[in-house]
Amino acid sequence: MSLPAEFYDAAKRVNNWGRWGEADEIGTLNLITDTVVRDAVSTVRTGRRVPLAVPLQQEGIQTGMIPGRVNPLHTMVAINVEMFGPDTIAISDDAVTMGLQAGTHWDGLAHISHGGKIYNGRPASSVTAHGGAACHGIEKMRHVVSRGVLLDVARAHGVERLATGYAVGPEDLDAAEELAGVTVRSGDIVLVRTGQIQAYLAGDRQAYGHPSPGLSFRTPEWFRARDVAAVANDTLTFEIIPPEIDGLWLPVHALDLVEMGMPQGQNWNLEELSQACAEEGRYAFLLSATPEPFTGGAGSPVAPVAIL
Amino acid sequence: MSLPAEFYDAAKRVNNWGRWGEADEIGTLNLITDTVVRDAVSTVRTGRRVPLAVPLQQEGIQTGMIPGRVNPLHTMVAINVEMFGPDTIAISDDAVTMGLQAGTHWDGLAHISHGGKIYNGRPASSVTAHGGAACHGIEKMRHVVSRGVLLDVARAHGVERLATGYAVGPEDLDAAEELAGVTVRSGDIVLVRTGQIQAYLAGDRQAYGHPSPGLSFRTPEWFRARDVAAVANDTLTFEIIPPEIDGLWLPVHALDLVEMGMPQGQNWNLEELSQACAEEGRYAFLLSATPEPFTGGAGSPVAPVAIL
Amino acid sequence: MSLPAEFYDAAKRVNNWGRWGEADEIGTLNLITDTVVRDAVSTVRTGRRVPLAVPLQQEGIQTGMIPGRVNPLHTMVAINVEMFGPDTIAISDDAVTMGLQAGTHWDGLAHISHGGKIYNGRPASSVTAHGGAACHGIEKMRHVVSRGVLLDVARAHGVERLATGYAVGPEDLDAAEELAGVTVRSGDIVLVRTGQIQAYLAGDRQAYGHPSPGLSFRTPEWFRARDVAAVANDTLTFEIIPPEIDGLWLPVHALDLVEMGMPQGQNWNLEELSQACAEEGRYAFLLSATPEPFTGGAGSPVAPVAIL
Amino acid sequence: MSLPAEFYDAAKRVNNWGRWGEADEIGTLNLITDTVVRDAVSTVRTGRRVPLAVPLQQEGIQTGMIPGRVNPLHTMVAINVEMFGPDTIAISDDAVTMGLQAGTHWDGLAHISHGGKIYNGRPASSVTAHGGAACHGIEKMRHVVSRGVLLDVARAHGVERLATGYAVGPEDLDAAEELAGVTVRSGDIVLVRTGQIQAYLAGDRQAYGHPSPGLSFRTPEWFRARDVAAVANDTLTFEIIPPEIDGLWLPVHALDLVEMGMPQGQNWNLEELSQACAEEGRYAFLLSATPEPFTGGAGSPVAPVAIL
Repeated sequence: MSLPAEFYDAAKRVNNWGRWGEADEIGTLNLITDTVVRDAVSTVRTGRRVPLAVPLQQEGIQTGMIPGRVNPLHTMVAINVEMFGPDTIAISDDAVTMGLQAGTHWDGLAHISHGGKIYNGRPASSVTAHGGAACHGIEKMRHVVSRGVLLDVARAHGVERLATGYAVGPEDLDAAEELAGVTVRSGDIVLVRTGQIQAYLAGDRQAYGHPSPGLSFRTPEWFRARDVAAVANDTLTFEIIPPEIDGLWLPVHALDLVEMGMPQGQNWNLEELSQACAEEGRYAFLLSATPEPFTGGAGSPVAPVAIL
Repeated sequence: MSLPAEFYDAAKRVNNWGRWGEADEIGTLNLITDTVVRDAVSTVRTGRRVPLAVPLQQEGIQTGMIPGRVNPLHTMVAINVEMFGPDTIAISDDAVTMGLQAGTHWDGLAHISHGGKIYNGRPASSVTAHGGAACHGIEKMRHVVSRGVLLDVARAHGVERLATGYAVGPEDLDAAEELAGVTVRSGDIVLVRTGQIQAYLAGDRQAYGHPSPGLSFRTPEWFRARDVAAVANDTLTFEIIPPEIDGLWLPVHALDLVEMGMPQGQNWNLEELSQACAEEGRYAFLLSATPEPFTGGAGSPVAPVAIL
Repeated sequence: MSLPAEFYDAAKRVNNWGRWGEADEIGTLNLITDTVVRDAVSTVRTGRRVPLAVPLQQEGIQTGMIPGRVNPLHTMVAINVEMFGPDTIAISDDAVTMGLQAGTHWDGLAHISHGGKIYNGRPASSVTAHGGAACHGIEKMRHVVSRGVLLDVARAHGVERLATGYAVGPEDLDAAEELAGVTVRSGDIVLVRTGQIQAYLAGDRQAYGHPSPGLSFRTPEWFRARDVAAVANDTLTFEIIPPEIDGLWLPVHALDLVEMGMPQGQNWNLEELSQACAEEGRYAFLLSATPEPFTGGAGSPVAPVAIL
Repeated sequence: MSLPAEFYDAAKRVNNWGRWGEADEIGTLNLITDTVVRDAVSTVRTGRRVPLAVPLQQEGIQTGMIPGRVNPLHTMVAINVEMFGPDTIAISDDAVTMGLQAGTHWDGLAHISHGGKIYNGRPASSVTAHGGAACHGIEKMRHVVSRGVLLDVARAHGVERLATGYAVGPEDLDAAEELAGVTVRSGDIVLVRTGQIQAYLAGDRQAYGHPSPGLSFRTPEWFRARDVAAVANDTLTFEIIPPEIDGLWLPVHALDLVEMGMPQGQNWNLEELSQACAEEGRYAFLLSATPEPFTGGAGSPVAPVAIL
């Protein structure tokens, strides 16, 4: 019990351990029922599709600040190889080495631990070098398709991009919900736009990373109250960094992933979506964002698409 | 002109070069219009979701037969690391090295060349070690969401799995279309089930790979006639291997990717989908299958989901 | 104390913990003094050099039996790139992904633990995903140059290659020493030839790997008695496999690396050296075999050269 | 013939094509004869060993300036895994992804081309994504052991470190040779110390990289006149950068590697060696610096050791 008392207080309020049984490995994704999906599908009006991933490339988001989270090294292992003799049909093949959290990604439920525990009270020691996450691996998130709601906090503030020190709180989510004209409900995937990714898009990776606006320590309860299935945003760190409570680093990660069992998405490019939603005057859509099924993965790149 | 004459005859009949302009880099994906997507969305009845990817793991599909196409090496670069001091919130991160075509994947349009050309007449030499595919990189396929149609050839034949030497021809596609009760139309993504992946699921990678049933040299014209947007199946090689015409290897790849500009999917697990479609008596659904946006990628892993 | 009693008996006899101080991280490599090196140098007669590494390539030694120990994936990241404009001087660069123990390699002292301990009584938990081996990393073996002695057990037996079930014991080492006409002494690096690598050189990786002849559980004491600095051989597993004592796997590894603090080399190609030594009638030479200094490495590829 | 005339003039003077036959793949390494090695061995007096490689780690030399030349990503694929049951002997294994030229390395003869040719007139197109360098692969440099001579240019100048814009010319090599009291001769491996690597050792990778002192365009002829086998130094770029002749980038690379067929070493840490040579008053020693035998490699990490 070495973290500040207010952390444990919040943890108690958002905790979902046991809610879907002791064997559960997908947490709040359980909230995406067939009914939720049918309702999500019914939001589609125009068929317009907006991709939300940043390109995977060596000049990617990572600056080396986070050890091991390497930008993609994309290499060709065959270039126009005529495997079957001269002047036959030729093949080009490629390979990649990358941090699974390097680009646009989902944090899986095994990504964070505290007090020796991961979500649902499983031991943190179940994550090993030899197989990765034995519990809550990213491959357990077999399909992530639901209603997406864009909470465009930057737009609600009337700015292009929130200030770097800005902690997005419940009141900001309320205001963005009001702008959206949508009530966030059970099973929704909420996309919170800060505009911070503009720094990366403009070529400044350092400025993008930190300091950064991000979600406040007070937001997990907001998400828990609405029974949101997952939350993603357009920052490197997801939560405000440096943190709001001195010395308490990554509390939102711990509350969302460990206590609530709710996947987090980072480095999502919400700029085009913000434009599209504003144009159409609609902020709810069908969102398809299934991670790659890395067995034992603590995270995964994802290529999310919003269908309006 | 060193390939058999019948190849060039077929090539002429399916060729789409210039159809969407000289600058086009996505070929038949152009056929997925907003209208197609709206219609695709309208196929959803129950909200049931079926994932189609095989797990990404070191005990994956590849046997070493295809040089450089390595199974995923998933490694942890941090395990419960308390980056901010003892008894703080801890992080687990991971990284991967893999062939982009190692698991369930899309072949991008730059994957195949013949006669020094890739799709739309671009030079094959535009694929380099330094940047990969300068034209038609997989990142150009920004969103792949459309109506999916399962053509369950194995089921239409009344077998669990087609014989290894079986070339799936237009007549098989017709029969499966009839079983499906659906007419394949412009913009559809067709999933052709042979049942071959059962070998892999049963643990026999060698038997899965080759010899294998697969699509016949005569099928590209069938897809071209219906203006299909993309085709995927449940084999390693997509097309029948060894090939139907002695010495003419990979003709279907060349017709689909180079001439038609139509992406191909391989190693898709269609077993659960086959069961679901049979249960529901419906073979059309919303399919979401966007590749990861590797800049210059000749291919990409994909985690497709069918929404019924 | 869960291993057989005879293991702990042997462990006690070969243990070197504390011998070079509590802070020691290189074990028996301490035995290679300047004097030993001068004597090693004095063995050189002809200047003939014999390399002992197998090529590093995707068609390498590993079969997939040992998870994560992947053969090298060598890729070009630039091929004749004219970085400074057309018709300028062009660059080709490459990259690799590989298991550090995949080819000809040294096992570092952190490679093996038992009872929660590594060499010198350090905690096994000092090896982490985040930094590798904090103690006894392979980079601590800053230079490995000493007298090498080939103990050509296969030749002493009058065979090309020992039988797969053959455990090389002290009596075999004695016989090979006699054949060599050399007395193994403090600081020597001993190369034990079984001939097993002929299977790999002939293209049969499966046969090479296991079952395999290898060093007996009784050999660590022989090496300890002579104060050998390191031992390498021409097998995948170093020691006889399956093991001599039912259920006691890798006892030689544990005795050599954990108890004695003596590095082990595996997959060394000793065929050309065997020929050279026989031709010259000399089995002692200068050996240069410094590992690549991977910070925190549990092992490293090495390109050893014998100088006769 | 698109490079400046003075380049072609110099090229003519240093060219070694055909000197060791049309089939030759190792260039000036042919100059290291058995006699040279014996003489090299005879330089050893004390047995003192000095390693010359920088650690291989993620916080390595590369800054991202050179695409694809990634610092080592070292990962554990097993940490104290008890493969044979609880409380048995446990294994830790590791893997790496890295640019082969990322740390202390040799440039192989296929690393550079101009006018479509590599050393010995072979076509540059012999370097492919599918196999790397078919000619002059780094694995052809089977053993690199010879006399090393430290030309300590910084010390000869009486400075810790040469100015960043300083081009080391023949006159500097002469002065350092004089300081060394050694005449460089056929088969020697020359190590040229600028002191530039101090920037990296002090933690400033940017300052280390460029601008940088380095070898002048006028030095290849000096090396050719003495029939040196190889040259290495303590800079990222080997040669002075930006270059001496406006617009003529990498001329020293092209003269050394393509024309002369002489391997180059970069990022060698010569600081400890400089100290040792000064202390002992001897600048010639036995040098062992065999690259890892990557099949088709354009370069390779190396862990060189000087034996004094």
